[in-house]
Amino acid sequence: MSLSLYQFSVPVFEGSLAAFLGVLDKAEAHAEARKFDATNYLALRLAPDMFPLTRQVQTFCDHAKNASFRLAGAQPPVIADDETTFAELRARIGTTRNHLKTIDAGAVDAGADRDIVFPIGPKLKMRMQGPDYLMHFAFPNFYFHLTTAYDILRSAGVEVGKRDFLGNIPRISPV
Amino acid sequence: MSLSLYQFSVPVFEGSLAAFLGVLDKAEAHAEARKFDATNYLALRLAPDMFPLTRQVQTFCDHAKNASFRLAGAQPPVIADDETTFAELRARIGTTRNHLKTIDAGAVDAGADRDIVFPIGPKLKMRMQGPDYLMHFAFPNFYFHLTTAYDILRSAGVEVGKRDFLGNIPRISPV
Repeated sequence: MSLSLYQFSVPVFEGSLAAFLGVLDKAEAHAEARKFDATNYLALRLAPDMFPLTRQVQTFCDHAKNASFRLAGAQPPVIADDETTFAELRARIGTTRNHLKTIDAGAVDAGADRDIVFPIGPKLKMRMQGPDYLMHFAFPNFYFHLTTAYDILRSAGVEVGKRDFLGNIPRISPV
Repeated sequence: MSLSLYQFSVPVFEGSLAAFLGVLDKAEAHAEARKFDATNYLALRLAPDMFPLTRQVQTFCDHAKNASFRLAGAQPPVIADDETTFAELRARIGTTRNHLKTIDAGAVDAGADRDIVFPIGPKLKMRMQGPDYLMHFAFPNFYFHLTTAYDILRSAGVEVGKRDFLGNIPRISPV
């Protein structure tokens, strides 16, 4: 069977982004049950010098979007980092998912041996081969921020578990 | 270019496991500088009903090992969950890496369309196609526990950053 780079990238980001909407649902339900404003979650951090929830969400969204567009040989669209409410955080994920839907699977697959050039920080640009970039840079970064966002909410008392993090696993069946 | 399932699996786990040894180095250095026993880290949790550091490490090691062996069509070796010191946690990662080194790349590649049967919890067994299992189950689980282990140490004051988490990214060059 021949493997497709698309299958290893865009739908994987997409599944994890969709799952995180479910995590946000449970966070919002928790806030409602405890009668506090869900906006209070946005500034929570695991340490004073770590990113707060809002920035964790923005960052994992951008890793999903940027990696997917770069693998397709396209310029990633820029989304403003201006979310200040829970609904806007949800919309950020929605916008990111909509962008992912526009990506042509054939363009990703055709470019499996394409070199990816991407910024690290404000000045440095790096080059990696597509699959290396996806597996050794994009996914570790994506899951780093996705899990930390989950951990922020989980440690704040939101009743989520690994199943919420995993979401709907595609094409799985009981034996 | 034809893609290899091996390239998307074993070396990716291996790189992240190696990176975590560097995170543990910094944790131990922090304990030494602050004159406390590094063993104190082992029972730390982000929430009272989450796994402590030791179990997070055992779990991400097992996801790496089990996924890699299953993709190769082999029975994953079992490692006892009996670590009680920092050195033993390090050794657990070392043993896992040694197991990964025994995996035949050709066996993984040859089995890209193999169905993987794996347990979820004590009773249930599930079936997924190899690449789906890797990308939609094994990696999300692996990075979930790896990042949470990092987050436990980071929130406990250990001076680590994203670079430590990413470790040595292979085949990357400045532009």
